Amino acid sequence: MSNSLVQKIKKLGPVEAHRSYKKVITLPACPVDFETLSTWYTPGVADPCREIMKNPDEVWALTARENRIAIVSDGTRILGLRSEGVCGAEPSLPVMEGKALLFRALGAVDAVPLTIGWRDKIPTGEEIINIVKMVQANFAGVNLEDIEAKDDKCFKVLDGLRDDEGMNIPVWHDDQQGTATVALAAVINALKLSKKKKEDIQIACIGSGAAMLAIIRLLVAWGVSHKQIRLVDSKGIVDESRDDIDDNTEKGKLKSKVQQLEVMGDEKSKKAAIKVADVLVAASASKPGGIIDPELVKTMVKDPIVITMANPYPELDPKKAKENGAFIVGTGRSDFPNQVNNSLAFPGIFRGILDCRASTITDSVAVAAAEAIAARAREISEFGSEFILPKMDDVKMVVDTAVAAGFQATEEKLARKPLKKEAESDYRREVEKRLSDVRDMIDAILNIVE
Amino acid sequence: MSNSLVQKIKKLGPVEAHRSYKKVITLPACPVDFETLSTWYTPGVADPCREIMKNPDEVWALTARENRIAIVSDGTRILGLRSEGVCGAEPSLPVMEGKALLFRALGAVDAVPLTIGWRDKIPTGEEIINIVKMVQANFAGVNLEDIEAKDDKCFKVLDGLRDDEGMNIPVWHDDQQGTATVALAAVINALKLSKKKKEDIQIACIGSGAAMLAIIRLLVAWGVSHKQIRLVDSKGIVDESRDDIDDNTEKGKLKSKVQQLEVMGDEKSKKAAIKVADVLVAASASKPGGIIDPELVKTMVKDPIVITMANPYPELDPKKAKENGAFIVGTGRSDFPNQVNNSLAFPGIFRGILDCRASTITDSVAVAAAEAIAARAREISEFGSEFILPKMDDVKMVVDTAVAAGFQATEEKLARKPLKKEAESDYRREVEKRLSDVRDMIDAILNIVE
Repeated sequence: MSNSLVQKIKKLGPVEAHRSYKKVITLPACPVDFETLSTWYTPGVADPCREIMKNPDEVWALTARENRIAIVSDGTRILGLRSEGVCGAEPSLPVMEGKALLFRALGAVDAVPLTIGWRDKIPTGEEIINIVKMVQANFAGVNLEDIEAKDDKCFKVLDGLRDDEGMNIPVWHDDQQGTATVALAAVINALKLSKKKKEDIQIACIGSGAAMLAIIRLLVAWGVSHKQIRLVDSKGIVDESRDDIDDNTEKGKLKSKVQQLEVMGDEKSKKAAIKVADVLVAASASKPGGIIDPELVKTMVKDPIVITMANPYPELDPKKAKENGAFIVGTGRSDFPNQVNNSLAFPGIFRGILDCRASTITDSVAVAAAEAIAARAREISEFGSEFILPKMDDVKMVVDTAVAAGFQATEEKLARKPLKKEAESDYRREVEKRLSDVRDMIDAILNIVE
Repeated sequence: MSNSLVQKIKKLGPVEAHRSYKKVITLPACPVDFETLSTWYTPGVADPCREIMKNPDEVWALTARENRIAIVSDGTRILGLRSEGVCGAEPSLPVMEGKALLFRALGAVDAVPLTIGWRDKIPTGEEIINIVKMVQANFAGVNLEDIEAKDDKCFKVLDGLRDDEGMNIPVWHDDQQGTATVALAAVINALKLSKKKKEDIQIACIGSGAAMLAIIRLLVAWGVSHKQIRLVDSKGIVDESRDDIDDNTEKGKLKSKVQQLEVMGDEKSKKAAIKVADVLVAASASKPGGIIDPELVKTMVKDPIVITMANPYPELDPKKAKENGAFIVGTGRSDFPNQVNNSLAFPGIFRGILDCRASTITDSVAVAAAEAIAARAREISEFGSEFILPKMDDVKMVVDTAVAAGFQATEEKLARKPLKKEAESDYRREVEKRLSDVRDMIDAILNIVE
């Protein structure tokens, strides 16, 4: 893309740039003229309809459904506006369109924004489940986005959709599973560099929202024991002594499983959790200057690993973390090294999952994707404490992740169209071609509208 | 488009053509690279979100919503498969994607297929209304498609959505309003050619489904009196004597308004309705050979106008209609002259309605569109009894229709962004550019995927 166009966008600023360009449009990808319309529409179209009536599986091949997903949100916890509370459907649309753009540009996935609710009407979790279920026939997958964890809403929606017998397509909550996948990739490589084994480490987890609970679940799926994990929420250590946390919530279920430290009080708990920990993972609140005392890094064991994901202000200022002895620091920000960003994971994972027509995305698929992302970083010459993760526009990373996710889903017998191990290199080439086609298409469209 | 590509599509046939190409994909229409992602996604995207929170009207300009509509169906009355009954959500997807293709290719409208239901689950009218309402924030309009008239379902859905105070965007049922608009355009030009005035004619209406009831409503909106209309259903003349028709249904409400002939029996009623009628309009059942005796055309007044829209078999064989003295014959088929096809109307109507951000599409907007379509045909040198309507790929027709619909909506104070009469020529150029851009984009994409 031309540098002058980049400069133009920067000069416009986000609001005017959004006024000038559209982040997602629809287009036919077939020959369209008067003569072909009788194939694509009446009377010809009745034939593929009949084929699908005869064999419902044909819907995947005979429509664009196989590559189309919905970006679903209720606008209750919008990226970058979390401190502003519930935004609702309309104000969250630019984020969902942005996500659709990322899915298409990075993963060659067709994505349709689908915010639910209108003006002051915020849908309940039940309503979201029902609507997604009722429109599933149009999609090969669903990406849930920016749904609040209050009253376990995002967990209930995700689990409700995944467990529903009527649902037939994978549902992914990127704020949970995407974040967890990339955080795990970061941990994998950080441990490699510090020569530590997963079974020997202590992990301090600061924050207990949707992202952190998903990170813990994925760490456990990867092979870390709950007993290696110290969990801290805004009141203190989360353990069996916490009568204020309902046992039936996602967080409550962890109380008896994680390490028992019995320390209450925000600061005291952080201190206890971080002391002689190997890894500090934070996914909590964004506040200028951070919410964790940088001095605490000194209390960690040798070569401390610090991954603080609050945006725009990491829980611990990355420079101060380094000054206090952190060996590796990762944040959610693009202007520091080691950006831990969902965009590293979801394009490749969905690419692989859609290509094998998987019915769900399991934790082991996410672990396989994390391993692939981590492995890709290690292939790059810059790999080291300042470069533990690939960049989001690394095409090979997307291909590697797609291969890992697609074959893992195939192995777990989740695939309607299993990938063939002997055809892996063909599949890689196919994904590369799709990704390069998308880049060409975007350039071509831009040449026309510009 | 190259002729070899057209030949290729024909050779493939509809099923394999659908397997080889995708009729609707999504793409970004903005510069996308690593540097611009911070504008389109986090952190930049928070700015347009905040603007929309401050001023909800900004959602139209700051997202792609202003040009995006949903193609909504429950799969209960699928085009070309009507005799096969309820098909459901999956088998109807090729039709909805085809409609999305037409909207984009002919009207430069972004369209997303949204079939509702899954496998054996067919949504109720209430459920359709609720779901459409809950996802409206993503769309600037809704096109209802192929919803059955049984139990007044399609009327209830359309009226329910149009009358709902929570609904903020236009809802159009193309099988009703689109068909009616084009049928009216055909009648307008047929009357011009036969030098008859609308206030003097008698119209025989054969069929009483959604399309016909909408045709009657639009004829009345245009200035025909109910008393000029003779309505026939499968049992006989629809009039006050018909106790078998519930007064509260759409059809029942017409009983006392239309011409009273008191004739029962399918054949007898057709005979009574068609006798000394000026216009015969049929929108009923498709059966090889037709369902109306061609001899009846001889009983009509001088220069009979016959518009029979059943597909693929018109109610009256067009050749036989001519042999029996019809002056003008129109059908739904592309292989006979005078194709009465919705595709003439909906692209231009939506183009105009979206451009002025109208809140609804009234009958007078549809009448204005019908007048524009008819006027466009009269500009063409072939205009005459074998050419009463333009072809669907007539770009000027789409522009004329958009102008007519947009300015009519503006005049009726339905427009959030009124079109300016003095800027009409600018607006025309803008629509022309959009339509030509789409053709260029489709060609460019095809060059890449082919």
